[in-house]
Amino acid sequence: MTIELIPVHGIPEIREGDVIADAIATAAAEQGTPLADGDCLVVTQKIVSKAEGRIVAIDATDPNAKHALVEAESVRILRRRGPLLISETTHGFVCANAGIDLSNVDDGTAALLPIDSDRSAQRIRERLAAQVGVACAVIVSDTFGRAWRNGLTDVAIGVAGLLAILDLRGTLDDRGRELEVTEVAIADEVAGAAELVMGKATKVPVAIVRGLDPAWFGNGRVTDLVRAPGGDLFR
Amino acid sequence: MTIELIPVHGIPEIREGDVIADAIATAAAEQGTPLADGDCLVVTQKIVSKAEGRIVAIDATDPNAKHALVEAESVRILRRRGPLLISETTHGFVCANAGIDLSNVDDGTAALLPIDSDRSAQRIRERLAAQVGVACAVIVSDTFGRAWRNGLTDVAIGVAGLLAILDLRGTLDDRGRELEVTEVAIADEVAGAAELVMGKATKVPVAIVRGLDPAWFGNGRVTDLVRAPGGDLFR
Repeated sequence: MTIELIPVHGIPEIREGDVIADAIATAAAEQGTPLADGDCLVVTQKIVSKAEGRIVAIDATDPNAKHALVEAESVRILRRRGPLLISETTHGFVCANAGIDLSNVDDGTAALLPIDSDRSAQRIRERLAAQVGVACAVIVSDTFGRAWRNGLTDVAIGVAGLLAILDLRGTLDDRGRELEVTEVAIADEVAGAAELVMGKATKVPVAIVRGLDPAWFGNGRVTDLVRAPGGDLFR
Repeated sequence: MTIELIPVHGIPEIREGDVIADAIATAAAEQGTPLADGDCLVVTQKIVSKAEGRIVAIDATDPNAKHALVEAESVRILRRRGPLLISETTHGFVCANAGIDLSNVDDGTAALLPIDSDRSAQRIRERLAAQVGVACAVIVSDTFGRAWRNGLTDVAIGVAGLLAILDLRGTLDDRGRELEVTEVAIADEVAGAAELVMGKATKVPVAIVRGLDPAWFGNGRVTDLVRAPGGDLFR
């Protein structure tokens, strides 16, 4: 079955208190791709943070200001190189600068990650069910680097209504033997796929991923994707 | 613009010497989605390795046999936990067990990574241009783990005709300031997206990714994605 990645254009600038779900549903309908049961919406962290008021003042001319903010949002600094800090955030994510971003926000402000992006995703999902009558999964995505590979990819930082990890343990390969690869991070693959139609500089903060396997809809949580420090060989 | 992820069904079992490009073109045409200019094909490493004869005998009952094979395919072992080895392969990839896989191959054999997956991808691309007359990009994909996140995702281990990294340095955000996120690993995002329609246990080793931004077609190489050990904070 074919999967479609559909950008949602026309979402207005989001401000604190705005109901993202309504803005998405309206924009999707207006561009001729109304939301449907079984869609997975991928919503970039930035507009979730804005709607939830996770915008703070920052003196961008003070090199220590962002640093202090990163430390406040982190439980542990893992590495430091020049202005770059790799830390473990309060959510357990390992990423650069605790996910704090100064792009696409007003001058003198910075966007922090949502406090609980699973809950943010769930809130959008519930609102769409109640207001529009559609059963959609929702992923909140952000852009993270990787340890050993150049470039960044979008990953899931919040999930609702979709498995985060597809567990294939016990599944047989085409020779009837158990698969060696058993846990697929489908929520991260969906987030990265959606990034391909969103871009960084364009005003497309949401994509519809249409056609995912119905068996994948379930109760995933982002903690499924976060490797516990004790199970981590590279921290 | 919408991107489509189209699984290619009906590709026969691949053996050493088979011309993958022809098998893909035939299967795509037979299922009613013939290859077209601007498509990006994502081809799983396993069938590339088979076509290129990168299958070796292994005594699966000997726990040291795979270990020895991993060491032979690696320049450095980074971590070891039980049967799991994380190493840097001869290609520069950091992954588990040097990408050696015992699933979906004959009993008593193991599939090694292609020697040069960029060249493998280029060979498929050139054959499609010559035989079918279509200009397609090609990614060879494999399934890798990540340092700090559970689950695996598909990434690019070979690229032809597509940028591996989209370099947005100098691009402005919607406020007219330079973006903080500047290098997007689009080849990895495309590989991960394609995995969503391929699965691990099904006989779908190829997907067509249709609708990528024409500006992304260019001369990417997988080395663009491989972080040099000197630039790596986690090795």
